[in-house]
Parts: sequence; C-alpha cells; structure tokens
Amino acid sequence: MLGSTHGTLTTDARRARVVACDDPRPGPTVHGRAADAGDLDVSGRPLHTDVPDLERFFRPESVAVIGASDGEGRPNTGVTRQLLAWAERVGARLHPVHPARPAVFGIPCVPSVADLPEQVDLAVLLVADPLPVIEELAEAKARFAVVFASGFAETGERGAAAQERLAAAVARSGIRLLGPNTNLNAFEEFRADLDGPAIALITQSGHQGRPVFALQELGIRVSHWAPTGNEADLESADFVSWFAERPEVGAIAAYVEGLKDGRAFLLAADRAARRGVPVVVVKVGRTEAGSRTAASHTGKLTGADDVVDAAFRQFGVIRVDGLDELQDTAALLARARPPRADGVVIYSISGGTGAHAADLATAAGLRLPELSTAKQAELHQWIPAYLNVANPVDNGGHPVGDERGRKIIDAILADPAVGVLVCPVTGPFPPLSDRLVRDLVDAAETTDKLVCVVWGSPVGTEPAYRETLLGSSRVATFRTLGNCLTAVRAHLAHHRFTDGYRSPFDEAPRTPSPSYRKARALLRPGQQLSEHAAKQLLRAYGIRVPREQLVTSAAAAVRAAAQIGYPVVMKASGARIAHKTELGLVKIGLTSASQVRDTYRELTDIARYEGVGLDGVLVCQMVEQGVEMVVGVGHDELFGPTVTVGLGGVLVEVLRDAAVRVPPFGEDQAHAMIDELRGRALLDGVRGRPPADLDALVEVVLRVQRMALELGDDIAELDVNPLMVLGRGQGAVALDALVVCR
Amino acid sequence: MLGSTHGTLTTDARRARVVACDDPRPGPTVHGRAADAGDLDVSGRPLHTDVPDLERFFRPESVAVIGASDGEGRPNTGVTRQLLAWAERVGARLHPVHPARPAVFGIPCVPSVADLPEQVDLAVLLVADPLPVIEELAEAKARFAVVFASGFAETGERGAAAQERLAAAVARSGIRLLGPNTNLNAFEEFRADLDGPAIALITQSGHQGRPVFALQELGIRVSHWAPTGNEADLESADFVSWFAERPEVGAIAAYVEGLKDGRAFLLAADRAARRGVPVVVVKVGRTEAGSRTAASHTGKLTGADDVVDAAFRQFGVIRVDGLDELQDTAALLARARPPRADGVVIYSISGGTGAHAADLATAAGLRLPELSTAKQAELHQWIPAYLNVANPVDNGGHPVGDERGRKIIDAILADPAVGVLVCPVTGPFPPLSDRLVRDLVDAAETTDKLVCVVWGSPVGTEPAYRETLLGSSRVATFRTLGNCLTAVRAHLAHHRFTDGYRSPFDEAPRTPSPSYRKARALLRPGQQLSEHAAKQLLRAYGIRVPREQLVTSAAAAVRAAAQIGYPVVMKASGARIAHKTELGLVKIGLTSASQVRDTYRELTDIARYEGVGLDGVLVCQMVEQGVEMVVGVGHDELFGPTVTVGLGGVLVEVLRDAAVRVPPFGEDQAHAMIDELRGRALLDGVRGRPPADLDALVEVVLRVQRMALELGDDIAELDVNPLMVLGRGQGAVALDALVVCR
Repeated sequence: MLGSTHGTLTTDARRARVVACDDPRPGPTVHGRAADAGDLDVSGRPLHTDVPDLERFFRPESVAVIGASDGEGRPNTGVTRQLLAWAERVGARLHPVHPARPAVFGIPCVPSVADLPEQVDLAVLLVADPLPVIEELAEAKARFAVVFASGFAETGERGAAAQERLAAAVARSGIRLLGPNTNLNAFEEFRADLDGPAIALITQSGHQGRPVFALQELGIRVSHWAPTGNEADLESADFVSWFAERPEVGAIAAYVEGLKDGRAFLLAADRAARRGVPVVVVKVGRTEAGSRTAASHTGKLTGADDVVDAAFRQFGVIRVDGLDELQDTAALLARARPPRADGVVIYSISGGTGAHAADLATAAGLRLPELSTAKQAELHQWIPAYLNVANPVDNGGHPVGDERGRKIIDAILADPAVGVLVCPVTGPFPPLSDRLVRDLVDAAETTDKLVCVVWGSPVGTEPAYRETLLGSSRVATFRTLGNCLTAVRAHLAHHRFTDGYRSPFDEAPRTPSPSYRKARALLRPGQQLSEHAAKQLLRAYGIRVPREQLVTSAAAAVRAAAQIGYPVVMKASGARIAHKTELGLVKIGLTSASQVRDTYRELTDIARYEGVGLDGVLVCQMVEQGVEMVVGVGHDELFGPTVTVGLGGVLVEVLRDAAVRVPPFGEDQAHAMIDELRGRALLDGVRGRPPADLDALVEVVLRVQRMALELGDDIAELDVNPLMVLGRGQGAVALDALVVCR
Repeated sequence: MLGSTHGTLTTDARRARVVACDDPRPGPTVHGRAADAGDLDVSGRPLHTDVPDLERFFRPESVAVIGASDGEGRPNTGVTRQLLAWAERVGARLHPVHPARPAVFGIPCVPSVADLPEQVDLAVLLVADPLPVIEELAEAKARFAVVFASGFAETGERGAAAQERLAAAVARSGIRLLGPNTNLNAFEEFRADLDGPAIALITQSGHQGRPVFALQELGIRVSHWAPTGNEADLESADFVSWFAERPEVGAIAAYVEGLKDGRAFLLAADRAARRGVPVVVVKVGRTEAGSRTAASHTGKLTGADDVVDAAFRQFGVIRVDGLDELQDTAALLARARPPRADGVVIYSISGGTGAHAADLATAAGLRLPELSTAKQAELHQWIPAYLNVANPVDNGGHPVGDERGRKIIDAILADPAVGVLVCPVTGPFPPLSDRLVRDLVDAAETTDKLVCVVWGSPVGTEPAYRETLLGSSRVATFRTLGNCLTAVRAHLAHHRFTDGYRSPFDEAPRTPSPSYRKARALLRPGQQLSEHAAKQLLRAYGIRVPREQLVTSAAAAVRAAAQIGYPVVMKASGARIAHKTELGLVKIGLTSASQVRDTYRELTDIARYEGVGLDGVLVCQMVEQGVEMVVGVGHDELFGPTVTVGLGGVLVEVLRDAAVRVPPFGEDQAHAMIDELRGRALLDGVRGRPPADLDALVEVVLRVQRMALELGDDIAELDVNPLMVLGRGQGAVALDALVVCR
C-alpha cells in the first residue's frame, strides 16, 4: 500500500558490487560510467561518483520537443506552449519535431530527430513510446532527454521491464535521462525578482513539491525543481550532488518515496556535507519498519526505516515528516547565516507566551541560556522590574509600543551567548504587534544573528504578516511554534555537524585486511558455523574470545579444563545447535575434574536424546561479570551491510534497545550509536558495578564493521551474542557467536 | 524559568484533605463551600464538586464598573468603553461607580458600591486595591466580581500574601471572583452569526487564547472565553464543569500553566467525560520532569509531567503541545459528529500524496482499512484501472475535473468501513482543486461521516481555501497534515473513551477497609520499617509475601528453615538497611541445616563489620522464577498519592520503564498502565518462559492503590521491589518491600 509510485524501491545497491574483496581489479560500470578500482571500497561499493553537469539541462541553449503540437484539444499542445514560454525565458532555441506538421506555433518543424538542424542540449519527449527516439537521439548526440510518458515501473512488472529496456538504451546512448513518468516542473516559471540563497527542490512526485515551489509567493527564492519521476537514469542523488555545488543554492529540499541506490544517495549527501549545504528530506516509509519487527536476528533489531534514519544522520541529512516542515526547515536553512552561538532566547510580550515557548523549546532540545545579571539589568532599563528577563524575556507588552522595543531587541541580539532570537507573536494587536514586528525586521537587518518570528494568528491576512514579515528576507517567519523549533534545531544541528565533519569515505578501507585470508578459510558456504568456528572467525578479526578447546572425550575435556584453568564452562558444539541454553546444553561454573567428566557425559546424553548432531564439546574459560551486549551485521536492501549494537539479555531482547549504522563509519559514529541506546547508563556502571570498557566495545564495533565490509557477500548472518564488556581497561570478550555463510 | 506566571503551581491539593481515614466526620470547607463526609473518598479527597452557576457571570442583567472612567488618556477609559459596548450587546444594565465623577459616558455614576441602585450580577473592579471593594460588595450582595489588578501571586511572596488575603475575603463574602490579574477577554465581542457547536475557551494567559478566539474569523464558533488569571477563587475546573453542561458547547479548549487543584480539575474532567464533551488542553510543563529524574524511588520513576499526562489520560482529557494543535483539535472535536466507524480513507489526486499521507496516518496510529474488492471495482468505474484505490485512493487527477469526482467521494463515504475521509490538497491547481474542494464540501453536507481537507498551500489566500473550504461548517479544514492527523486521532480516541467511560469516582472507596486497622498498628511514625514489618503491612492488604520467620539465633534459623521448607533465602533484617544485596546481606538457595547455621553467623558478622543494626535474620521461603516487577506509591504535589508499576531488575532501573496512575482508578486502568510498559511482552513469556499471572499483578496494583488511599498520609514511601509475578494462575509474591512512615 505504501510502496513507491515510482518503482525505485526494489533496486538493489548491490548490483555495483561484483569485485571480490581480496582481488581488486578494474570493476564494471557504475550507473553507466566507468569506475576504476580506486573508486571502490573493500566491499566493492563506490567511494566516489561523478556529478553530471546539469547546467545544460536546466539552462540549455537548444531544445528539441519531440511530439510537439499546436492542435486544438491535444494534450501535447499545452505542454508545447509551456515549453515555448520556458525556452524563451532561458534563451534557448526550440526545435519542434513532428513527422507530419510543417510548423508548430509558427516555428518550423522537422519530421524526425535525424533532421534536427543542430545537436541539442535537451530533448523533451512527448511521445508514448520513447525507446526508439532515445536510439535516434544517441546518434544525434543530444546531451539530455526528458520522458514524460507513464506506464513504466509504476504500473507493475510489464512496465518495469519496459523501463529496464529504456534504461539500457539510455546507458548505451550516453544521453542522461530524466524520467520516465515525470512532468514539466523543471521548466516552471521561477520568480526572478527574489534574491539571496535559494532552495533547490527535488521531488519524485511533482504534486508533492508544489508547496515548496509556492514559497516563492511568500518571498522565498526557489532556484530549481527536479521532478525525478521513475529515475530510470538520473536520480535524486545526481541532483543533490549538482545542487550542492551551485553558489545560489542555500539548501536542498527533497521529497523521496524510494531511493534508487542507497550508496549513491549517501555519496551525494557526503558531497553536500563537505560543502556545508543542508539537505532536508521527506522520506516516505515510516511505517514499513513494522514488517520486519518479527525477526529475532540482531541485524533485524532495527527496521528498514531505522536504517534510513541512521544513514541520514551519519551524513547530516535532515529528515522531516510533513511537507510543511520541509518548507519551513528548508527555507530557514537556505537563508540563515551560520550561528554565532547555540543559545536561544525566547522574547515575547506575555509571560504566558514566553513560558509556553520556553517549555516547548527546551523539550525540543534547544539550549536557553540564562542571560547574565548585567544583561538583565540592561533589559530592566526598559522592562519593569517585576517581569522575568532571564530568558524567556517578557516585556509585559507596553515597551513594544515605543522606542524601548527596538532597544530591547538590540540588547538581546548583542549578547554573545545568544545565537537565535525567537519571538512568538501569538495574537495580532496592531498597536503593539505591528511595531514589534517592524522593529524585529529592522533589527534583523543590522545583525548576523538569527531572528525568528512565529505569527500565531490562524487568519494570516494581517498586513504585519503579509507585508512586514513576508517582506523581509532576514527574519525567518513561521506559522507555528512547532515548525519554528524544528527548523531552529535543524539549523543548529546542521552547523554543528558540518563544522566537525570528516568524510568516512576518505578513510574507508579499499583493500582486504590481513585478517581476510584467514577468515575466508573458515567459511563454509551455505552452512551455519559451529560456535567454535564462529569464534575463530572473530579471533581472525582480532576480537577476543574465551580460551577454549573443542574436545570429543571426557578425558580430553578434563585435560582441556586443566590447561584453561578452573572454573570452566562447557557447551555442546555443533553446526546447527540453536537455543543451547534452553536445551540444557550449556553448563557454567564447573570447578573440578569430576564435574567436568560428569558434564561431558550429560551434554552428550542430552544431545543424543534431543537428536542434535555434535562435533564435540567446548570447554571454555569462564569469563567474569560484565555488561552483556550484542553486536551484529545486518543486510539492508537499500544500503547493503549494516552494523548493529544493542544491549544483551532477555529484557532488552524484549525492549529492542539497539542502534544501527551503515558502513563506512568512523569511531565517532561508533560512539554515537552506543550513546543512542536507552540503556546506555548500564555501561557507566550501576548498583556499584564498575564502568564498562567503552573503548573495547567501540573497538569491537569497528572490527565487526570491517567484517561486514570484507565478508558481507560471504555471510548471511553474523551475531556476537553476548559480547561481555568487562570493566574499564579489561576489554570485551565474545562469549558466543552465530555465523551463517551464504 | 518555566513557572506559572499566574502563581497557582504551588498550591497543594492536600489542603482539602484533613479528615482522618478511619474517622469520617463532617469535613471542612472545600474551596469555601461546605462538603459533607459523603462527598469524600477514604483519603479525604472530594468525590464531587458543585458547579458554580456562571450564567449570570457571562450574561449578567446588571453590571457595576468600579473605577469607571471617561477621562482622556486614562487606562480605565478604554476598558470602560469596552464594557459599555459589551453590556449593550448582552442587554445588561451598567452602573459606573466612581467617588468623584457624576457620570461616565453620560451614564450617572454612584460614588460607592453602597450606593448602587440594585444588587448586581457582576462587579468589574478597575481599582488597584480590590480588597476593600470586595468587602463592600459582600454587603451589596453582588454575585460575581472580576479583578483586573495585577501585582499578586505572579510577582512573588508579597503579592502571594496579598492574594491570600483577597481569597480569604472572597471566601467570606460569598461572591465568586475571577482574577486577579485577568482581563477583558470574557467580555469580547463574539461573532453571533456563526452557528453549530461552539468552542468554549479557558486561558490562564489571555494572550495565549487569542488564536483560538481568532478562529471565528475562519468561521468556527467560539461561545465563551474565561481568562482565569491568578485563580484566587474561580479556577479552570469551575469553567470546565460549567461549559460541559452548556448545550451550545461542542468542545472545551484550555491553556493551562498551572493547575490550582489537581483533584478539582479531574472532577471537572470527569463531568465532561460523562457528558461526552471533549476537553483539549495545552498544559505548560513538559520539561519540569527533568528536575525529578535523579531520584531512585519507584514513585519517582515518573516525573511530575508524566503524572499530568497519566491523570489527563485517565479522564479523557486530550493534551496537545502547540496552540495551533489546540485550535485545530478543538475545532474538529467541537463540530464533528460521533464517528460511524474508525476506518480512515486517504483520498488524493496523486499517488505520491496518498502514499505519504497514508504513511504518516499509519504512523500516527490511525487505521486505514483496505477497501473491499466490490468497493474498489465500484471506484474503478471512474478511476483508471492501473491506479491504486485500495486505500489510499488515488484518482490520478483527471476524474476530479468532471462529474466523476463527486461520485468517487460519495462512493467512499458510503462504505460502512469508512468513518473518516482525509483529502490532502497539496497544491492548488484551480481547474482540478477548486472542483475537488467544492465536491467535498457538497458531499459533506449529505453525510454524517467526517470529511477532512488539508489545504497544503503555504499561501492561503486562494478562493478555494478562503471561500469554499472556510465557508463550510461540515468540512474540517487544516493547513498541515500533521495537525489533521492529530485532530482525527483525538476525535476517534475521544469517542472510544467516552463510549466506554465509567467514572472511577462512583466506585471510589469512602470508608477504610478492614485491612486499615491492622495496618495502622504496624506503622512507626518517622521511621523506615524493617523488611519484615513492611511485608506484614503488605500482608494486611492481602498481598502475598513469602513464608518467612524473623529469628535471632542460629538454632532458631535452622528450626525456621525446617518449618518453611528447603531451599531457603536468608537476609539480614533491620530498620535501616539499604543495599542489602551489595553488602552481601542476602543469601539464596540454602539447602541444609549446616548452610543455614553458617549463613546466620556470616550475616551477623557482616552486619557487625559494616556497623548495621539488626533486629534479626529473616529466613524466607525461596520463590520460584517469575517476572520481576516493582509496584510503588508516589506523591505528586498536584494530585496527591500516585501508583506506579514498572519492570524490575537492574536493566529497567536504568531504562525507567514505568507507568503511573492517579487514584481512584479501576481495573481497566490497572491493565492499561501495564500495557503502557515498553517491556510488556516480558509478561507474555519470552525464551520459553510461561506467561505471567497478569491478573495477580493487576490485583496487587489495585491493593497498592488501596494502601495509597488509606495510608497516603501516614507513609512517605512504599515500594514493593521486587514483586515476583509467577506463571499464570500461580499469583505474585512480594519478595521485598520498603516502607518509610511519615
């Protein structure tokens, strides 16, 4: 029900990943363009994509319209008319193509693509079957094509097959294609009278972009609109990359139903993050997560949508839910200058308004610093002494009506602790609110700090709103406090993120580690490894496991226990044993040779009774108490391998307290994912327990990431469960592991 | 910083509760009015409050304005002018009172209250010091007074004292007072041309009510506005109670900074719930919870704001955060008829819009039923076959432009599974959207189902919005999808709640249980009870505890163990032992007389070494495995005793997975609070464990509630921790308890 209407969800990022990890060699094409080995990480995924030069798409010098019409009542006539107007605006030469018409709207027609008088930058295909035209265009050397026709992947299997044929033809042709199933949005009339940084818009569904485009009517500049449709070739990521490098673009707003290629999107987001350009995205699919919650595997502790959330966070992509949030957040981020401080002051003409706004702002995670005593004294020159000016600043109303109003605003903005002033104007009361708003607009012109006004009236026809506020490009105006707080939080978070951003792609491993060859020898294609073998695999990657020996007789068990040192743990070992504990196949705290001997017999008896095949019995070192965690590798359809960390034990199996990341990621993200756990405090030590060895846990997470990258194609499942994290400086030990090979 | 600006937060609900539990006798006055014993529950809290007859407040026949003025430039002149206009509108005789003026605006003035020509329904006090006037009014027998003066509890201690004197004078006078620190909002000009059910508005800060009042400009009727100010007498609860009984009121919207009396508010909410009148509230204080999170006591697992949330939920009060949500939710709930079904259909002209809205609607907890095959076939008469009409219904755009549009809407609304139709109109495209909106408005006139439109354009000046949508009282129009979904969810939840509502006040205990006398004998004022005594207290209330004996010699321990039956648990017992487990003062699984004898010595040795005073050693039955829970009593400043249930054990101590309720509540709420726990699934049995005895857990929660009600004044803390909930049919056993007496 919630699937994409543009047929891109099922495309798998893995298709570009056919290079064996230990054998780097020139790879195949990535999206039709050559990618050499230096562009791939050890998992075979690209570390770089080219940015298509879309300048000639948005500003072509010559355009062919194939299927142009000026016939009364024909659908193509309206489209042709709009394209003509657009070509005139951008100064492009337009060439109608039609097999029968001598001219369209007075412009001479050519009968076919082959007859075009020049190479064109852009060909607009208004024909029902674009495939043959693409082939003709290849010969005519067009740069870009747009296909409006629908009936492709959005309609089902047959349409998807047609789309694949179209994509293949496009790949052969060297033309870059927008569509199919797209529309005229890229060729709309943009307001040219607005200046300042603009929003560049990307939408998979044109209708959903309309509200952002309409922001121009509120004075907010929009520079481009890319309606990507079915993304048979050009995808959202291509536009993100290109927009991120345009000087006029202040923020990229995107409405995404399904990502075509997760890695491509992250590479584009990485490019935007490096350049400090905010990317604000509505990504449909909040409720898809439900379908995966039934699984028990660690990698599935988090649903597909959690992976999208995590990947977006890793690369600073700001995700919002509503189109109104997309509008308000993108508009603020496009236009606001970098914050001078992260302190937010709430300023209002009513104590109630201030208290309410401060409450919600604090709940939203914003920091409201208490103003200094000196600053408060300064404000009390103009504000009666009984009113609170610590933050929120309540002016009681009256000072707004005279020259004190502006002085208060200037004094607040002059405070070095203040980066953002938020003024909720709950109700219009022209004698006060008109002047208040005017003062805010004037003050905003003289400061580089962020001034936000929430115009709370539901009416919205008031001149103070329509003229004064919307007339200012320096004040950020909102209709709801909620959206204001969402946008301010995103603004501060965006700058915090990009200021400290180091691209994980720069440090991603490109060649297999020495561990890899050892590890490969342990894999058994199509099989689940025994616990012992799985632990050997972890050991190969430098993850500590208990001292243990696999034995096949009681006497050998006793010898092993003596070598390992008492007390020991004994476990049945076999390739297919699940639920060992429930079956009674794990015995802990054995302290003597006789106990070991008895236990050997007991375990083999149970295994026989339960019909469980054993390859022996493990005699293991007993590891001291610590915090039980799980670390695992999952596989996401969109992003490939993922790494999950969670709290272990039965309670958290129920509470599903886990965090996920998409490789490549660095130590900072390994720390961040641990910090996301609700039960994070357990690692600090509770009830007198010592703090756990966080560094060791981070190290295991990073080593498991390496396994995910190097072995991702070879293993279907990998779970370290439990990982016992010991006290600080004591390390972490994998007490058990599950590995299923592909 | 976030405190009330109206000085009501610190007032304690307990002041009405001075009747001893086991000694019911005529109580003192509750808010100035006599309350007899039949009106009180066993904790001494009222089970009933009178509703003040506010008819003559809002529609007085005679009004005195004390301090009236028509002098140029005097602040009271503007106020007097507004009151004159209002008196004329409501048909009241107005009497200016001023010691010096012969007339005000041509109306003859009397020099003092004593000289008023008649008893007045309402006296408006425009004087700086209202106290002496209240006393004069008492003699003149005015019914209501309004005090605008500020400088009372909102300004600090001296103001609070002045407010107390004012409140005392009001209580003596028999007059009901609105204010101080209130304003003219009650006497605004309400639009008389709007009909249908209205919103009645209550605000502590007048400014914060302005947006709801302004809804009249969008065609939504508002009938009353009560700006309660400092609530020295009349409080929000009084207005909720009275509005709930007014036939013209469809919903009550309130902006609350602090509740004066938690119980009074819940009684008012109960009255509204019985009558099915929705109460939508913004309650400031989301972030106060933070101040209490450091505590370790069970009752403090949840913060003060969680208690507000829980109490509101118990009585069906709908809490929202933003003023925009207050407007949109109250407007919908005031006007929508009871839902015919809870199924929601998303209908749009774009598949993208439908998928996005369906995703967010599902995430918001709404149920989107798949339409029947027959219904889909019916819709496909008008909608092309390749479009999805299962729900969301995507019409692809074109059918909206002709007569098919209305047929589709009617067909959806005719489906018995459908209670609500939500149509997001993302962008205005007049040829389609104007007709779509017109059809929706027309269809809404012919159905009793709910039709919602989200007008997604940020501009809002379009005629389809301003004229067609806002001109309809049958279509609920929103500017954001988020607010639409919030309101629809509240609407469905409100009716679900009130349909099954049984007032817990009807079944609240009024007299102490037989347990109470036994329990009282065990209390030790000012002391923490020993574990043994605390368990005896639980036993007195019928909560099962392990068989156990308190012994003071090793020999007695061995005898006790034999009587109890092996294995046993032994614990040091004393009035002040905390952290028994960490100190090694608990030993489990003792299976022989010699182990018991040794353990007795070990425990007494440790206690001596640690300097812990013992009253003996407990020898306890060892209880089989179950699910560890905690059940406790907390104390909330606003609502009095609370009952908390949570998951036990170290992990959940960290995760703070607990739910709270305010007594009185019934079995349904005991179940509901357990269902709120994130780790709820643990009680169903995980990893092969049997399901836990949920009925026994509910029973313990209800018995602890009884203790909270009967012993609330006597105990400072009560924690059952852990309560071991055994397998289904096996009961629940309190393994340990902490009781601190007041």
